[in-house]
Amino acid sequence: MMFTPADNDFAQRVRTSFDRQRVMQTIGAELVSVAAGEVVIGLAFREELTQQHGYLHAAIVTAIVDSACGFAAYSLMPATAAVLTIEFKVNFLAPAIGERFVAHGRVMKAGRTVTVTTGDVIAETAAGPKPIATMLATVMTVTDRPISG
Amino acid sequence: MMFTPADNDFAQRVRTSFDRQRVMQTIGAELVSVAAGEVVIGLAFREELTQQHGYLHAAIVTAIVDSACGFAAYSLMPATAAVLTIEFKVNFLAPAIGERFVAHGRVMKAGRTVTVTTGDVIAETAAGPKPIATMLATVMTVTDRPISG
Amino acid sequence: MMFTPADNDFAQRVRTSFDRQRVMQTIGAELVSVAAGEVVIGLAFREELTQQHGYLHAAIVTAIVDSACGFAAYSLMPATAAVLTIEFKVNFLAPAIGERFVAHGRVMKAGRTVTVTTGDVIAETAAGPKPIATMLATVMTVTDRPISG
Amino acid sequence: MMFTPADNDFAQRVRTSFDRQRVMQTIGAELVSVAAGEVVIGLAFREELTQQHGYLHAAIVTAIVDSACGFAAYSLMPATAAVLTIEFKVNFLAPAIGERFVAHGRVMKAGRTVTVTTGDVIAETAAGPKPIATMLATVMTVTDRPISG
Repeated sequence: MMFTPADNDFAQRVRTSFDRQRVMQTIGAELVSVAAGEVVIGLAFREELTQQHGYLHAAIVTAIVDSACGFAAYSLMPATAAVLTIEFKVNFLAPAIGERFVAHGRVMKAGRTVTVTTGDVIAETAAGPKPIATMLATVMTVTDRPISG
Repeated sequence: MMFTPADNDFAQRVRTSFDRQRVMQTIGAELVSVAAGEVVIGLAFREELTQQHGYLHAAIVTAIVDSACGFAAYSLMPATAAVLTIEFKVNFLAPAIGERFVAHGRVMKAGRTVTVTTGDVIAETAAGPKPIATMLATVMTVTDRPISG
Repeated sequence: MMFTPADNDFAQRVRTSFDRQRVMQTIGAELVSVAAGEVVIGLAFREELTQQHGYLHAAIVTAIVDSACGFAAYSLMPATAAVLTIEFKVNFLAPAIGERFVAHGRVMKAGRTVTVTTGDVIAETAAGPKPIATMLATVMTVTDRPISG
Repeated sequence: MMFTPADNDFAQRVRTSFDRQRVMQTIGAELVSVAAGEVVIGLAFREELTQQHGYLHAAIVTAIVDSACGFAAYSLMPATAAVLTIEFKVNFLAPAIGERFVAHGRVMKAGRTVTVTTGDVIAETAAGPKPIATMLATVMTVTDRPISG
């Protein structure tokens, strides 16, 4: 889907916000690309982020796709708006086995207040790319007040 | 709700599995308590885990409650079973501002294959406890095959 | 949880809105009770509403609990506001076998714009009450514009 | 995505099961098409199915897309299996205004026990087609026991 951003500097705005998320640095996530309504975040496998079987923990899979969805919504917001994730649902399709993980977040519907986004996570493995998770997330544009849910 | 565990050593089994989740050590989460069908995980605020406004990132809030729900389900499973999170939904109720965060996971319905759990996260603040997130999660008991979703 | 309604006539307002939902009459649902932030809807079993095994269809189970959640949120809104369901998730806990089904909707957090609600459906059977579904729903207060999502 | 059905008579099996869902006749839904892993259900606008503003009730929008998702999953199951919806989430994108509504359900990942599906509902209006809802649903293949969740 094609979207017209409300702010021409949306890509820089997304990059600045991403850089301020300390947790993204902590887990080693990187912002791969930013388009209007579509953001990609990558993460290399790291043992510090595993669950009991040695795979990437579902919470980290969730973290990168949740961020990709939130920033996809943020990319279409006015320059002065803040972004607030209201809720999301994630389904895990396969164990998070791979050398690298790539989360895509895309805006499905951008409303004045509520934006609906979808996301997925692909594991890059020796045998090729494999989808491991899918998300449906609701994001709010906050323009006129302190963030308080 | 009262549940009868299938395995008397359930608490030790949950603790062992928790200790094997490298990501829980990485973020500094600790297992507070384990009962049959109910698990509590705590996390002290850390700047490395923040989002752009300096609050705990929603992904970390999600990580502790997702784990609490998964381990609550796991506590009722047979000793030889593995636990697999099929999906979850989380709603964020307020910004994650606080000194410490406590996630409670509880089993709502334990089926032979599918267990439904609920969870919530409470922020401990100077002004008292405050609910910041609620989760509804579906967990699978895997007994007869390698985990593959 | 105790809530203070913004509109003292909330119960009448909910009843009027319920009566205008033609689909509730079509399926035979009735408004059992209205309190501030809590609404109960009942439905007697009817063969016209069944799925392929002769149980109440999951869509009808969903319909009554979705309405109970929406009206629970609506009960706390200002007199001039409209209610809009943004999204919900429902887990089915057991087949909808019973003579009557009762859906409870409750507000968990009432924000200025976004209200988070939970709901459940109990089947009344010869063997006693049995939970068959649980819901987590997000509802929006619309005050200043035509409803458009 | 292309799927190979486990049962060559899947289309007839889906049609037979759809015809047994009394509620689908009650609301006037029809099975538009059945392919392996993809099912389309249509519904003409009817006043008996409206909410308080005269639009199609969200519960009916949900009913047709929930069924489309469930039957999409069922189309890939073995001939002797039963289908059980574990849970779903639906986001409403726009009011259900239109002359006719078409729900598409598609399998995203068909596992041995758990199938993940997505669905959407398009309203046919004088101004053209408009997406009004999107769903992410988890469906279970039941092969060896009475349906009990």
